[in-house]
Amino acid sequence: MAYRPGLHLLSTFTASADQLVEPSGCQALFDRLIDSLELTKVGEVYHAFPNGGFTAVVCLAESHVSIHTWPELGIATFDVFLSNYLHDNTAKARQFYVDVLCHFSATELSKQELTR
Amino acid sequence: MAYRPGLHLLSTFTASADQLVEPSGCQALFDRLIDSLELTKVGEVYHAFPNGGFTAVVCLAESHVSIHTWPELGIATFDVFLSNYLHDNTAKARQFYVDVLCHFSATELSKQELTR
Repeated sequence: MAYRPGLHLLSTFTASADQLVEPSGCQALFDRLIDSLELTKVGEVYHAFPNGGFTAVVCLAESHVSIHTWPELGIATFDVFLSNYLHDNTAKARQFYVDVLCHFSATELSKQELTR
Repeated sequence: MAYRPGLHLLSTFTASADQLVEPSGCQALFDRLIDSLELTKVGEVYHAFPNGGFTAVVCLAESHVSIHTWPELGIATFDVFLSNYLHDNTAKARQFYVDVLCHFSATELSKQELTR
């Protein structure tokens, strides 16, 4: 079997500070997307900073999702990377990305698409 | 305070299968680098797959590190992303990257550098 590169989408976006302060809404969203897209979570870290903002990584059998927020700057960096090892997960990566930006009512500052 | 983009280094590399099978050596390396570079770990996931290979994400106050391995293909994807929120961590990201590839006696298939 040859390696089949997967899609890694990387965003920097702006959003309102109240969306970026604490992780519970984001965690519920990630869990809902992982479930609906039939991805496999193998572990996760959600960490809220004492002064506001949070950082999170979700480890998937398919690779990972991450988000880091700075509510005082109204900014976040977000990644979704799904390998294509057993299935072509390209469409799922794109759906995950769009749904996260929609959830945060985000304005995209930058988006990169890497196939790796 | 303005947002100061940080360096995100992304690698796909080849290495010998025995290096990519299980995570304990990688975990020890990551912990050593986090300590020596004075980074702040806030959580981690190391997951070994039943058929060999592992996937890991380390959540840092400075952002994250991730690795996903496929020993049967002799391949891995590795990321280190350090924001520059409080300090310029560019040199630390580059040092982390080089030390990981050295540890795995890796051959770089691709490397991307994003400032985000």
